[in-house]
Amino acid sequence: MTFRMIAAGVSVLALAAPAAADEGMWLPSQMAEVAAQMKEAGAQVPPEQLADLTKAPMNAIVSLGGCSASFVSPQGLVVSNHHCVYGSIQYNSKPGQDYLTDGFLAKDKSAELPAAPGTRIYVIEDLRNVTTDMLKGVTPKLTSRQRYDRMDANRKVLIAACEKQPNRRCDVRSYFGGERYFLQQQLEIKDVRLVYAPAGGIGNFGGETDNWQWPRHTGDFGFYRAYVGPDGSSASYSKDNVPYQPKSWLTLAKDGLKDGDFVMLAGFPGNTNRWRMASETKSVFADRYPLNQKLLSDYSDLVNKLTAGNQAAQIKYASSVKGADNTKKNLLGQMAGADAIRLIEAKDEEDKAFRAWVAADLKRQAAYGPALAKLDALLAAQDKRAVNDIRMGQLGRAQLLSAATTLYRWAKEREKPDALRETGFQDRDRTPRSEGLKQIERRFDAGVDRQIMEWALTHYRAVPAGERNDALLTKLDTIGLDKLYGETKLADTATRLAWLDKPAAEFEASTDPFIQLAVAAYPWSQKRLDEEKDESGKLNEAQRTVMAGRMAFTREQGKPVYPDANSSLRITWGKVTGRKQDGVAWSAFTTAEGMAAKHTGKGEFDAPEKAIALIKAKDYGSYTAPELGTLPVNYLTTVDITGGNSGSATLNAKGELVGLAFDGTLDGVISDWRFNPEINRTIHVDHRYMLWVMDKVDGADNLLKEMGVK
Amino acid sequence: MTFRMIAAGVSVLALAAPAAADEGMWLPSQMAEVAAQMKEAGAQVPPEQLADLTKAPMNAIVSLGGCSASFVSPQGLVVSNHHCVYGSIQYNSKPGQDYLTDGFLAKDKSAELPAAPGTRIYVIEDLRNVTTDMLKGVTPKLTSRQRYDRMDANRKVLIAACEKQPNRRCDVRSYFGGERYFLQQQLEIKDVRLVYAPAGGIGNFGGETDNWQWPRHTGDFGFYRAYVGPDGSSASYSKDNVPYQPKSWLTLAKDGLKDGDFVMLAGFPGNTNRWRMASETKSVFADRYPLNQKLLSDYSDLVNKLTAGNQAAQIKYASSVKGADNTKKNLLGQMAGADAIRLIEAKDEEDKAFRAWVAADLKRQAAYGPALAKLDALLAAQDKRAVNDIRMGQLGRAQLLSAATTLYRWAKEREKPDALRETGFQDRDRTPRSEGLKQIERRFDAGVDRQIMEWALTHYRAVPAGERNDALLTKLDTIGLDKLYGETKLADTATRLAWLDKPAAEFEASTDPFIQLAVAAYPWSQKRLDEEKDESGKLNEAQRTVMAGRMAFTREQGKPVYPDANSSLRITWGKVTGRKQDGVAWSAFTTAEGMAAKHTGKGEFDAPEKAIALIKAKDYGSYTAPELGTLPVNYLTTVDITGGNSGSATLNAKGELVGLAFDGTLDGVISDWRFNPEINRTIHVDHRYMLWVMDKVDGADNLLKEMGVK
Repeated sequence: MTFRMIAAGVSVLALAAPAAADEGMWLPSQMAEVAAQMKEAGAQVPPEQLADLTKAPMNAIVSLGGCSASFVSPQGLVVSNHHCVYGSIQYNSKPGQDYLTDGFLAKDKSAELPAAPGTRIYVIEDLRNVTTDMLKGVTPKLTSRQRYDRMDANRKVLIAACEKQPNRRCDVRSYFGGERYFLQQQLEIKDVRLVYAPAGGIGNFGGETDNWQWPRHTGDFGFYRAYVGPDGSSASYSKDNVPYQPKSWLTLAKDGLKDGDFVMLAGFPGNTNRWRMASETKSVFADRYPLNQKLLSDYSDLVNKLTAGNQAAQIKYASSVKGADNTKKNLLGQMAGADAIRLIEAKDEEDKAFRAWVAADLKRQAAYGPALAKLDALLAAQDKRAVNDIRMGQLGRAQLLSAATTLYRWAKEREKPDALRETGFQDRDRTPRSEGLKQIERRFDAGVDRQIMEWALTHYRAVPAGERNDALLTKLDTIGLDKLYGETKLADTATRLAWLDKPAAEFEASTDPFIQLAVAAYPWSQKRLDEEKDESGKLNEAQRTVMAGRMAFTREQGKPVYPDANSSLRITWGKVTGRKQDGVAWSAFTTAEGMAAKHTGKGEFDAPEKAIALIKAKDYGSYTAPELGTLPVNYLTTVDITGGNSGSATLNAKGELVGLAFDGTLDGVISDWRFNPEINRTIHVDHRYMLWVMDKVDGADNLLKEMGVK
Repeated sequence: MTFRMIAAGVSVLALAAPAAADEGMWLPSQMAEVAAQMKEAGAQVPPEQLADLTKAPMNAIVSLGGCSASFVSPQGLVVSNHHCVYGSIQYNSKPGQDYLTDGFLAKDKSAELPAAPGTRIYVIEDLRNVTTDMLKGVTPKLTSRQRYDRMDANRKVLIAACEKQPNRRCDVRSYFGGERYFLQQQLEIKDVRLVYAPAGGIGNFGGETDNWQWPRHTGDFGFYRAYVGPDGSSASYSKDNVPYQPKSWLTLAKDGLKDGDFVMLAGFPGNTNRWRMASETKSVFADRYPLNQKLLSDYSDLVNKLTAGNQAAQIKYASSVKGADNTKKNLLGQMAGADAIRLIEAKDEEDKAFRAWVAADLKRQAAYGPALAKLDALLAAQDKRAVNDIRMGQLGRAQLLSAATTLYRWAKEREKPDALRETGFQDRDRTPRSEGLKQIERRFDAGVDRQIMEWALTHYRAVPAGERNDALLTKLDTIGLDKLYGETKLADTATRLAWLDKPAAEFEASTDPFIQLAVAAYPWSQKRLDEEKDESGKLNEAQRTVMAGRMAFTREQGKPVYPDANSSLRITWGKVTGRKQDGVAWSAFTTAEGMAAKHTGKGEFDAPEKAIALIKAKDYGSYTAPELGTLPVNYLTTVDITGGNSGSATLNAKGELVGLAFDGTLDGVISDWRFNPEINRTIHVDHRYMLWVMDKVDGADNLLKEMGVK
């Protein structure tokens, strides 16, 4: 053990080592490229099979929008994390019917509950390279603004064509900084129902204390079911709807995992920054993250102070504060992690090596040199503005101002033909816009909103005049906050929603002070948008050329070349393993006894008494892990994931379900910038624990039978 | 490994298990009692030898008042923790001479620097049972107040007699809740000099981030030297003073420790609560700790807000805020720990068992029954007052009010003969009082003090009228804060100190508003003091009887019987060992490579470049641990310590120095209430690491030669 400890210590020092196996969030279309590696790591499913999204197991993988999930029965049963179905548990709870604490189990389909409004299941059908279509008509002769407009139009045409098929939601995303583009086509299922969630003392065992920590003992799983119209088409909730029948579904492995086993995972990772240039990385860690972290912390403190003693207001702002706190913790983790792995130094070395490689060859100089110089200048200019944007962005936390601004822009955009409107302001966006504007009623308190606006304004005013929207400030000073909050009618949901259908002229004639403010603010925002489009066009041109060079260079070094996460479908693999560092070793599995040892019977460590009694009796049925001699709860792997992968099915070498990914560790969140196989671990809930809870604790026999387990 | 993991999990559940070996903060006089156990554990020094404070190794153990330390050379060289000599490093640092960051080494004695004012080395000479003397004249016929007064007088006589010997500082402390009393006699050395402290990047490596954490890599050590007058008597600083020659000193072990080795430790643990009754424990965790934690947190937030952007004020309040933050973290740790080990339930069971034991026997009923009933009633009454005291106690943070109150009481006490004055207000207390009053000048800002007073007053006023000092509030309202802070002269140090010599009448005639306030507040405080003395007399009588019963009961159960920590000399032993819990295992040692892996070159993880270079070169000289194949840094043991033990010499079986204790882990601070051998670990710095830093990094050859190492 000692020797391995030392080895770990040394290799953490030696950061220049080539990127290790297990790193990579691969596109399905890259499977052929990595098939040999994946087979060597232990995959028994032919990796090429994973490239085909119309075949098992890939067509069982779905997105919840922000979380990943998968079908586990022919009747549209979907498994994901407890924290991914949390909103729907909360939505269906009330005093005396506290599913968050007690859990919920529909004993048959008629007892299943509608999920929270806006819940969707997206079944991925296609992910195809549309780079050629995106660059149609894009020539070097275009101005940067023309370039932007041309690509924006191309994107809209692609999406519109894709969404001509009924019930589809399509998007086009940029990969490798615009070096290529893929269109993702998904079937949108709108009738989603809550089927089962274990008690909070299982599903959220350990709460915030254990969040991002190991050892972990969280049963972070829950079930939805997808419903469609009787004709099989996607439809909104109706009692006549029937369970959706997926083309395939995952089967649950008979044997569980053991230390060292191969695992793979498919899901929708949200965002990583591994391809960012050294200069951007520096500015993010020197300026943007610290400022953002401070503002999040101040915001959270402010709202806590404003809502103290007012339970109704606390509930309204709970999710906003929880989100701020979570991001704040994550940013602190990233900043500490960047120091710990000496990220900036490593990025500088990488950058130097790339520039040397370009300089060493005349052809490469010609191909990449000019774009590189242009990109450097563009990124330097971007940095200053990014800090201002963070300061100004706080004003978006004032919900009535934000609503008014959105509404007026919506009206202005509606003056154009649909295809020419800005992304986010087309007819296809009306439902989510309307849902967003409605939601304010459950998340808004006028007194708190006003204080938040005052706080945000101090940061807005700190931005130099000329670089901020001075027309907005002037108008605001004329109106005054008393009148703004005293006379607006926007706090009324019906009034607010009615503006969605009014023409711009009506806004301009309105006496509502928030609407007046939005009208006054509009011209500067449009000017700013024009500048951004121009920049974006310039950046796109320089970046895709530089990225092509960086990818070629990276390939030459024998390092993996996969795009940064962007919420599209990715595949990753790794193995079950603990972690060894100087003075501490993590084992790969935690056990039921460890959960019982943490159980205090209150607060965040309050498992159901039945679970504790079963553990005391060692009543584990067939769910014991032979190597451990007891029931496993959570395990660690090296799979390379990030936020958005929550709920992803963990698959064994044969492609069978062996658990769900649900978290990482705080000292590993820096993997968003650089994957380090010594440090980064993903935490999964073991499917044997899921099944034990369902079988022994909650008696969910109906679901076990449906999944073919019983 | 798996089996041990499970075993750990289960035994944490099984809290009813008898207290384990390694538990116990033993009085030297108890050594005979535990000699067999200690030998079995591995002690080679005859345990009985440790009972003799006039012989090695015990007469090499010293106190710094709040920290423990030991002599390590015939020339009065003293080793303790870096954090124990921190105040003296800070005191001698200034811009351009930053010993906190760069470290300090006196290459010869003439370069040694005076320690911070008030620094003392106390050489323990005697610790003798004075229970009989303390109870002289104490009969059941006395009223509770008479009982208090009699014992108070007895205590003063004992101390005065002891301090007749020149340069001695003596105290009488209560053990087992007044069941017995010991007098501790110490030689007080007043000329203390800073000899050596490694760089902050060694001595405080890891900073707040690693504080109370494992794995740890802190070189938490530093050196003082004791000086006395040329005639050998204790004297204040003078350049004519000479090094003190202790009767003995510790030698440094040639061979270091390995996993499983026996260690022992002598030092001055501050305070534990293991003998507290179940009812007290409940009230502390239900009311007192949460309130205190909240107030500490509010205080820290308030001062941070008030001093933001004002560096001078920040420095003045830095140690106060640091102290508040540290206690706040510790209380959170204790509260979480109490939940984790289910302390309240365990105390209830213990309590029930004791009461059943008393009830089961007529003789025991007669001996303990009435006292137990009386104690229950007294503790219930105490609880309510304790919460009020915490609220009112915040006013003590207003430094000018606190100074005025102390000064007037000092004047009033001086009206009595010295022997009849209250403890803390006798001639022997004049120097520390004067030092305390002087210190305000470096810790006070009038604007901040006023805001703190306002904050504290809101809590003071929350105490029901009649239970608080209403005369103080009335006077305060009459004066008003503007006048209080506008007209007082107490902020001037000379003025403040001059009051130490003025008679009470001058206070009463003074126009200084803070002095007026102190005079107005005095009568209620005296009334309250009288009540406290009465209660104390009652409590003492009931408690010592009940404690005798509890001790007998505990002995019958075969559990260890040692008194709670009270800052007097104690001995404990245990072994070097890591910790295994479900999902994570701590190894016993950390290594230099682990330190280098944590090193980021900035902030809290900024080791000297020389140290990092030596580690890269594996230049460990003779300091390598053969079993590890590298240089050890910190290690874990099971020794049972608490705050006050910091700096304690860790001794091997032969009584040789093998390191210094310096910390525990946050999940172990609950050991102040209950020791749990599965969880509680003490963190030590390995003496091989100390020697390597001194030898290879800092070139402290003079000290290595003096200690006989080179």
